[in-house]
Amino acid sequence: MQNFSYLCARFLKTIQSKRQYMANFQKLTPRSEDYSKWYNELVVKADLAEQSAVRGCMVIKPYGYAIWETIQAELDRRFKEKGVKNAYFPLLIPKSFLSREAEHVEGFAKECAVVTHHRLMNDPNGRGVVVDPQAKLEEELIIRPTSETIIWSTYKNWISSYRDLPILCNQWCNVMRWEMRTRLFLRTAEFLWQEGHTAHATKEEAEDYARQMLDVYADFACIEAMMQDGKALQAGTSHFLGQNFAKSFDVQFLSKENKYEYVWATSWGVSTRLMGALIMTHSDDNGLVLPPHLAPIQVVIVPIFKKEDDLNKLLVKLNPIADQLKALGIRVKVDTDEKYTPGYKFADYELKGVPIRLAMGGRDLENNTIEIARRDIQTKETISIDGIVEKIQSLLEDIQRNLLQKALDFRIANTREVNSYDEFKEELKKGGFLLAHWDGTAETEQRIKDETKATIRCIPLADLPGHKNEPGVCMVTGKPSAGRVVFALNY
Amino acid sequence: MQNFSYLCARFLKTIQSKRQYMANFQKLTPRSEDYSKWYNELVVKADLAEQSAVRGCMVIKPYGYAIWETIQAELDRRFKEKGVKNAYFPLLIPKSFLSREAEHVEGFAKECAVVTHHRLMNDPNGRGVVVDPQAKLEEELIIRPTSETIIWSTYKNWISSYRDLPILCNQWCNVMRWEMRTRLFLRTAEFLWQEGHTAHATKEEAEDYARQMLDVYADFACIEAMMQDGKALQAGTSHFLGQNFAKSFDVQFLSKENKYEYVWATSWGVSTRLMGALIMTHSDDNGLVLPPHLAPIQVVIVPIFKKEDDLNKLLVKLNPIADQLKALGIRVKVDTDEKYTPGYKFADYELKGVPIRLAMGGRDLENNTIEIARRDIQTKETISIDGIVEKIQSLLEDIQRNLLQKALDFRIANTREVNSYDEFKEELKKGGFLLAHWDGTAETEQRIKDETKATIRCIPLADLPGHKNEPGVCMVTGKPSAGRVVFALNY
Repeated sequence: MQNFSYLCARFLKTIQSKRQYMANFQKLTPRSEDYSKWYNELVVKADLAEQSAVRGCMVIKPYGYAIWETIQAELDRRFKEKGVKNAYFPLLIPKSFLSREAEHVEGFAKECAVVTHHRLMNDPNGRGVVVDPQAKLEEELIIRPTSETIIWSTYKNWISSYRDLPILCNQWCNVMRWEMRTRLFLRTAEFLWQEGHTAHATKEEAEDYARQMLDVYADFACIEAMMQDGKALQAGTSHFLGQNFAKSFDVQFLSKENKYEYVWATSWGVSTRLMGALIMTHSDDNGLVLPPHLAPIQVVIVPIFKKEDDLNKLLVKLNPIADQLKALGIRVKVDTDEKYTPGYKFADYELKGVPIRLAMGGRDLENNTIEIARRDIQTKETISIDGIVEKIQSLLEDIQRNLLQKALDFRIANTREVNSYDEFKEELKKGGFLLAHWDGTAETEQRIKDETKATIRCIPLADLPGHKNEPGVCMVTGKPSAGRVVFALNY
Repeated sequence: MQNFSYLCARFLKTIQSKRQYMANFQKLTPRSEDYSKWYNELVVKADLAEQSAVRGCMVIKPYGYAIWETIQAELDRRFKEKGVKNAYFPLLIPKSFLSREAEHVEGFAKECAVVTHHRLMNDPNGRGVVVDPQAKLEEELIIRPTSETIIWSTYKNWISSYRDLPILCNQWCNVMRWEMRTRLFLRTAEFLWQEGHTAHATKEEAEDYARQMLDVYADFACIEAMMQDGKALQAGTSHFLGQNFAKSFDVQFLSKENKYEYVWATSWGVSTRLMGALIMTHSDDNGLVLPPHLAPIQVVIVPIFKKEDDLNKLLVKLNPIADQLKALGIRVKVDTDEKYTPGYKFADYELKGVPIRLAMGGRDLENNTIEIARRDIQTKETISIDGIVEKIQSLLEDIQRNLLQKALDFRIANTREVNSYDEFKEELKKGGFLLAHWDGTAETEQRIKDETKATIRCIPLADLPGHKNEPGVCMVTGKPSAGRVVFALNY
């Protein structure tokens, strides 16, 4: 009987595993039907991330993490060109530090993970482990929601003279904010990010540096990006912080003129939220679409074979192509795995957004041809393998440009002027960026947010494509406006 | 009066800052006088790390972190050549997970940071922030001391068929163990590491993989290294874990033969403790000595100038040298900072262990010469700048070889045979590795450890240099011994 129920359980597991295997290639919910559902399905099916056993904390799966690694490598290189050095500061922050900067506490610190004890012990009743009540900490420690306080308390010891400035530090780390409603990458309790914290001798230098880092981000990806549902998603920030932290932690330096002055600060960061933006900007109903510059696999080569002997013949042609691509710095994978069929592989690489897929079978071998498929516009053709390496190299750049242009075109097409508050409310339902006049006050901004949920995403300093930047009157109060600003609903 | 005390405080701060500046170049305590003190001073003075405001947690300073980054890059490349993929698993682990693997709990889980609450609130008495008693978690969460439990609970969802195996995952992350006595890098409450966790279909494949990863580590650095005080320091581990975790988390797969089987596991890791080993293996009384392969700056170029015009003339010669070195992949820094004197810079780069220092002044410019100083053996000479790039390239390899050979020679010179327990105890005082016969039982091993603190560091499978591996009798019990094993005191 026990054996029978064991077999039943096994049988169920077999069916479930088969079902799971098939589910992976069931069509995604179309974006037009439910954009949010499409996103959630895509993140899981493309093996990017999944919910963990810990509420609100995600597991970033190998393929998702590989994309994050390419993002990291690209950004890290650009930071280092700007003189930034990486460092590492403690995960835990004494509770009292968070009281030092009152504004800071208002901002994030309330919903956070609090460490109160430092030991577990065997349960006296024999049921696993329990917290040892004897091991209560004198002062509670907070898992960093951000590191300004611990970093500026450290900078106090590093800075005494103008000679010690600037300090241009960044750290790549995990942070934690106790979010109630979470979505993979977009909002999770634990997430990965980089946080840059710089210290400068003058206001001008700090302001300039904050702007430079904004340029680094903008050059890397549009950081105030429009998703395909017309909502805005902010994935990076760069702030000039004035002397607030220097004053809270008493960080002063002796200037060249022999005077004590407070240090000027900036902070800037992007997080794994950027993964969400990347997914939502380019992907389609068939799965992920990755810009080649950020794709962990830029080119996949799939030999089509039945016998090992056939495979070996194909590899004689394919391996040199792969080697030449690698020598050019192109990330290429030759997939010789016999556990999966070519059909499975094609569907999987499409779902995972690999920009270029090459396939070669016996007939191609005879004809000196290869099939080349392009993920972004879903075309495929059979071409001669002569000159294939150069063709791929230029095709990757074409795809990169095409995806960027498409995203820009989409943003331009979905950015429009509105001239009254009623029109604003009506147009907001259609999504996109709305260019409207605003009187420049925080009160009006808040009123618009409360009434419509829309927020100001950007205050253009120059004309936007097709939209001249001219003064006018606020759509809400009728007071003067220096120029239109960009409103949108956002993630 | 207030102003006067302000000035006094300022004056004190000036003196302190001056003192701190000078202290940096005070001689380190010689190794022969106090090895432990020498290490502690070196870590701080060479700007590698410092204690933070949080008990037992260190700040890894930019220069120390840059060394860790070169270690990471080197290891990560080698892991990826072995098919490893990086991923990220949650920081927090439900308390109940730690009860699942009883042995595991015995091992590390007791001294750890426990998260019990998820919110702070303003103190009703107006004194900063306090923990909100309403926000108590239903189940406490533990900051990972290691991730086997959370990873294997995840693998359960990833593995159903032999097609899903092997899984070769690694993560670079922070972990936390509540250590009572801490030392920078060697033992800290929070540390950084990589932890690889692989899942295999067969015992043989898992055992083989654990061995392969041991080879990766051994090829990168000797992972059971001897420090200059003759103690052993283990910086990396690679374990074959059998089916323990698969059984605890019920991770089974359907084999090719259509049978359900438990998955086989390995785990392997190195931590920032490796930084401690790196520092202690090669450095001297003048500061850090870094092997070129791991030095963030391999060559520093210091132009010696008074006026900007002189600097520009020097840079006409020096920049092309730097560019050629960079093109060869050599990490080079041209230090044109006017805030520090050449003397300060020389002392600082010596302390920081930069393998090669080049210096050029006005006379060198006239003579087409350059001064080249080698950190490892503290030599310097003035040579023609013709062929300087090739000279540096080969010199870096010489230094790398020299340091490795020196460490090996030191280990050989300090490894000796002992033939009785009395001799063992006597020789142990002098430090080094002792080759002694042991009866192969855990009881005898424990007795030796209890009585002498020495542990078995290695069971040689072949002859060690100068020592033939032959059977004998245990120095403690007189029972048969298959061959000598290596004993040492350790960190």
